[in-house]
Amino acid sequence: MSTIETLELISEHTCFGGVQRFYSHQSHAIGLPMRFSVFLPAQAHGGKLPALFYLAGLTCTEETFMLKGGAQRVAAELGMILVTLDTSPRGAAIDGEAASWDFGLGAGFYVDATEPPWNAHYKMHSYVLELHQLVVAQLPVDVARVGIFGHSMGGHGALVLALRHPELFRSVSAFAPICAPSQCAWGQKAFTGYLGDSQEHWRLNDASALMASRHAPFPKGILIDQGLADGFLAAQLFPEAFEQACANAQQPLRLRRHAGYDHGYFFISTFVEDHLRFHAEQ
Amino acid sequence: MSTIETLELISEHTCFGGVQRFYSHQSHAIGLPMRFSVFLPAQAHGGKLPALFYLAGLTCTEETFMLKGGAQRVAAELGMILVTLDTSPRGAAIDGEAASWDFGLGAGFYVDATEPPWNAHYKMHSYVLELHQLVVAQLPVDVARVGIFGHSMGGHGALVLALRHPELFRSVSAFAPICAPSQCAWGQKAFTGYLGDSQEHWRLNDASALMASRHAPFPKGILIDQGLADGFLAAQLFPEAFEQACANAQQPLRLRRHAGYDHGYFFISTFVEDHLRFHAEQ
Repeated sequence: MSTIETLELISEHTCFGGVQRFYSHQSHAIGLPMRFSVFLPAQAHGGKLPALFYLAGLTCTEETFMLKGGAQRVAAELGMILVTLDTSPRGAAIDGEAASWDFGLGAGFYVDATEPPWNAHYKMHSYVLELHQLVVAQLPVDVARVGIFGHSMGGHGALVLALRHPELFRSVSAFAPICAPSQCAWGQKAFTGYLGDSQEHWRLNDASALMASRHAPFPKGILIDQGLADGFLAAQLFPEAFEQACANAQQPLRLRRHAGYDHGYFFISTFVEDHLRFHAEQ
Repeated sequence: MSTIETLELISEHTCFGGVQRFYSHQSHAIGLPMRFSVFLPAQAHGGKLPALFYLAGLTCTEETFMLKGGAQRVAAELGMILVTLDTSPRGAAIDGEAASWDFGLGAGFYVDATEPPWNAHYKMHSYVLELHQLVVAQLPVDVARVGIFGHSMGGHGALVLALRHPELFRSVSAFAPICAPSQCAWGQKAFTGYLGDSQEHWRLNDASALMASRHAPFPKGILIDQGLADGFLAAQLFPEAFEQACANAQQPLRLRRHAGYDHGYFFISTFVEDHLRFHAEQ
């Protein structure tokens, strides 16, 4: 990948003394234009800052977290750059791509598809890595202080990205992540469609399975928040599988279960400050 | 209006230890079902609380501020109830109602229309008063501590509602309000359509004109935030007209002009905490 890429600035908004930017660029990994968003706090004028990637859930875009998460206030205080991205390629023009809300458009699951026709453009795992290189090259990001977090499908993505690339993502947390996609309906549909029946590819994209082959990869701990009124908890999320995998791997895990909270952004915005502070301390 | 109305709870979400609710009800003023939203902080279990009404801008709904404003965190800390409402009737089935984004659907301008066909349902000024009665009757709202604020068209609405009903709304503030609708294109289009050519009706719905006939109606002051990179500032908002009217009326006004900020929710969310604290102090 070239380190000199053309970023198209779509819009820019002053926010909490910093700047909220929405970009488009031609992605090498995806082979199509992709959109991402960055919050740069005012401290970005003074040198390199830590950065935190956020991976969104099903149906979301690069805008969702920046509009609804309420994180910029805390990032401005901590001097932390926020980076968000879209949840799938746009414009792949695959038949049936928009037929379901949990597969195809808005549902890339942060995997590199191996199955046609998805393998032409649905390379979201590689895209996160490309975007990491891109923001390190073009924005005042301290490459030694980059973390990752996400929600639901994006919580799964954040855990998998961090477990497979701990040299790039030094800290990881999640809101209501899909912890064991190989075992739930969302994950099985997505993995079958994108990855076919390769058990090795399934394992490489399943945070609970990956943790089984690690030993305390994040010694300072992993933070997960889970609402107990989350309608997807019992059938799709399986935090107990990841909890068990962490116990086996001697991985410190702070899994907080919150009575009353559901799966949406009212839950995320309530606890987002804790997550930014968790990453800032690492 | 009956004080016993049936509220339909559409959805409920735990948020910052309180609860975010979306309601529908049959409005007497509008003659159609209307939607509104309430944030009740945890302190609502302990007795009556102050409440703050938020009136949204063009194209918004009762959801917008609750999703993008980031105000619940502060309301939870202050023990303040937040109330938001839709920006027009829905379902009036008027020809051309959806033809423009600045008139008709999503653009009720918080006036009581006198011109047919709008006067059948577009009674948004009366609707705010109905909703005030409703939440005081059905929620733990302290009627002596209700304030109002809003954004753009809703900033205009908040100023007008407060100036005409200071006994109901004890404090008022605004983000980038349309300060002199009689003098700008948005306001002239809306007032002509909803109010015809009655200069008295125009005056009764123009904050700067109303202030001219008052003497310091809010002795503790009015707070207005205005971004200087706001693309609507020069042509539509005219804060200087309201500033002059306040000076003439000996009304204390804190008009803060912020370099770099535009008209959107990245601006609002940056300063919303200041507004909630401003109302809490009154």
